Amino acid sequence: MNLLPSARDALLFTPGPLTTSLSVKQAMLHDAGSWHFEFNAVVASVRERLLTLAGLSRADGWEVVLLQGSGTFGVEAVFQSCVPPDGKVAVLTNGAYGDRIVAMLGRARIAATVLRTSEDQPADPAALEACLASDPAITHVALVHCETTTGILNPLAAIGRVARRHGKVFVVDAMSSFAGLPIDFAAAEIDFLISSANKCVEGAPGFSFVFAKRALLLASEGWARSLSLDLLDQLRGFEKNGQFRYTPPTHVVLAFDQALRELTAEGGIAARAERYRRNHATLLAGLARLGLRPLLAPAVQSHIITAFLYPTADFDFATFYRQLSERGLIIYPGKLTAVDTFRIGNIGRLFPADMEQLVGAIERVLQQLSQPRAAFTETNRCDPACKPE
Amino acid sequence: MNLLPSARDALLFTPGPLTTSLSVKQAMLHDAGSWHFEFNAVVASVRERLLTLAGLSRADGWEVVLLQGSGTFGVEAVFQSCVPPDGKVAVLTNGAYGDRIVAMLGRARIAATVLRTSEDQPADPAALEACLASDPAITHVALVHCETTTGILNPLAAIGRVARRHGKVFVVDAMSSFAGLPIDFAAAEIDFLISSANKCVEGAPGFSFVFAKRALLLASEGWARSLSLDLLDQLRGFEKNGQFRYTPPTHVVLAFDQALRELTAEGGIAARAERYRRNHATLLAGLARLGLRPLLAPAVQSHIITAFLYPTADFDFATFYRQLSERGLIIYPGKLTAVDTFRIGNIGRLFPADMEQLVGAIERVLQQLSQPRAAFTETNRCDPACKPE
Repeated sequence: MNLLPSARDALLFTPGPLTTSLSVKQAMLHDAGSWHFEFNAVVASVRERLLTLAGLSRADGWEVVLLQGSGTFGVEAVFQSCVPPDGKVAVLTNGAYGDRIVAMLGRARIAATVLRTSEDQPADPAALEACLASDPAITHVALVHCETTTGILNPLAAIGRVARRHGKVFVVDAMSSFAGLPIDFAAAEIDFLISSANKCVEGAPGFSFVFAKRALLLASEGWARSLSLDLLDQLRGFEKNGQFRYTPPTHVVLAFDQALRELTAEGGIAARAERYRRNHATLLAGLARLGLRPLLAPAVQSHIITAFLYPTADFDFATFYRQLSERGLIIYPGKLTAVDTFRIGNIGRLFPADMEQLVGAIERVLQQLSQPRAAFTETNRCDPACKPE
Repeated sequence: MNLLPSARDALLFTPGPLTTSLSVKQAMLHDAGSWHFEFNAVVASVRERLLTLAGLSRADGWEVVLLQGSGTFGVEAVFQSCVPPDGKVAVLTNGAYGDRIVAMLGRARIAATVLRTSEDQPADPAALEACLASDPAITHVALVHCETTTGILNPLAAIGRVARRHGKVFVVDAMSSFAGLPIDFAAAEIDFLISSANKCVEGAPGFSFVFAKRALLLASEGWARSLSLDLLDQLRGFEKNGQFRYTPPTHVVLAFDQALRELTAEGGIAARAERYRRNHATLLAGLARLGLRPLLAPAVQSHIITAFLYPTADFDFATFYRQLSERGLIIYPGKLTAVDTFRIGNIGRLFPADMEQLVGAIERVLQQLSQPRAAFTETNRCDPACKPE
């Protein structure tokens, strides 16, 4: 990687991979044997602590399965493994990650019904109610908790209660929300919940984890359409000898072990959520002063990531992005089709002071962008002594 | 991780994850934005250098696709993506990794024919010839190059030529052999070849890579049974914007970039193969002196990993393993069903001097194990001042 003159990595204001602590990264400076008992002990401890973190226990019938690959692999594993051959999934979507669930069901030739709301509107429990009442073939309901396309927070408990009332299995993609805000699994009637190592636990990317009701995993015997993505088989691997069935990303697991320790040291999910909330409030207040407006109404906006509307019709995002990146600040492009936005994430090893730094940099870059072209070029002429300001 | 008193990680004499250089691990001390152009440039460079390393070029119709997850995910992706709905795969197997291909075809409901040889016998081109002549439904032939169950090296070119003569697609699982010995893709008539980041390139685990003929990838449109494992879609992601479709293990990619640099500095695959050959020769000579015999005949034994027969009928592998691990030396258990073996790998950041250290430690441990129980216990009594010798 090319480093800035300051030799500090750029800060990542993205939905992940995120900025992590140096100590989390330093945990990766060790080569562990994936068969060795010391590493297996780390894996066992990570699984125990994940259950505790989620407020779940094996006594109450919960399990957690770690799976190699990105978060998408974990989400797909639930459907590839745990939907029966004649199953049908109702997918609530208002963004790219809900649409991705629809796409993975298509690839797996699993029947699906799509309940779409517009990108700035939360999932609708009444629409789900009507759908489930009219289509008894549906076996599963799938929801993205925080849709990072916009940062919208979908009504988890309301949707979960409708699914439960109709006896459906409720699958939650909580990729960017788990550990970033408290989730009450019982109140939301959750059956499966997926997140990944590099989100709000603030580890490195390389595996996902699936919280699952053990009875549902056991009931899936013979259904899996993929070996790599077979959740029950993966669980049995852990139970047989404490190991991932196939080579785990050992270094990333060690980083996650350290990240969990640091999450506890910070005060757990409540304290972390509070830091992210403060990051978000700092960002919104600062950008409001500069005239930048979020896409979403405050009532549905998460403190995970925020989509901001382009300030002008001729806004040059590519230059804006590059100017910020030259200051060591990486933001995220928009993903919407209807409206032009860019996105700024509040999660990862970021603090309100970092959000203030970003706001200050955005202010300077917007000023430069609004200057006439000639003056702008002059300001940024580069010579050997040039450094990002 | 609990470190030894010397604060050095244990050496891994395994088929992977392997011991890597400190500089490879230090490359993971950076958080990269997966959307950022600097990281995309690393990904592009890694893909270019992999093709060059394999002696392939885009001009000749080759592509390389990186895929999140372990090597198994890469192997399964080829079948899930590139075998047509009415396809059928002839799998040559003489160990656990060949059997794993059979298992993944079963999960994907892809028709398969299994050509089995015993674990100490290489795959048989004549048997494949007869099979392909008698079953025109077969579309693909799958072979594990170095079957790490035993360390046997299968006859790649002979099998490939039979497949080509019958017009079948040839898929090679070269997980532990790629970069550990030269592979002539053209001579072996290879169409797909899969390896992973943590094998003989000596990177960290977290992704696999698939060399593939572009025409075969393009022909697979609409066949993929999984979204995460859709190779053509993954290729299009790289071609669209230089990115992995879904979150890559960024730190592991940075480590791999460094590992490729160190492979070049060592002198490329030929030099690395020579080091592994010397490791293997040192190991075999040393253990022969101790009366330990390899399972396989020399003609079919790779220099990647070797299975050794238990020295006595009552050999206590668990104690043997633990005694070596207390000396910071991690070996690998056997995987065979017919014969009791343990395995020792020669790949990774290991040198002949490390093999000599291992041989010396094995000699001492075997001496201890052969002592009467009481004396053995005495020797190993632990007190607070106790350190591994």
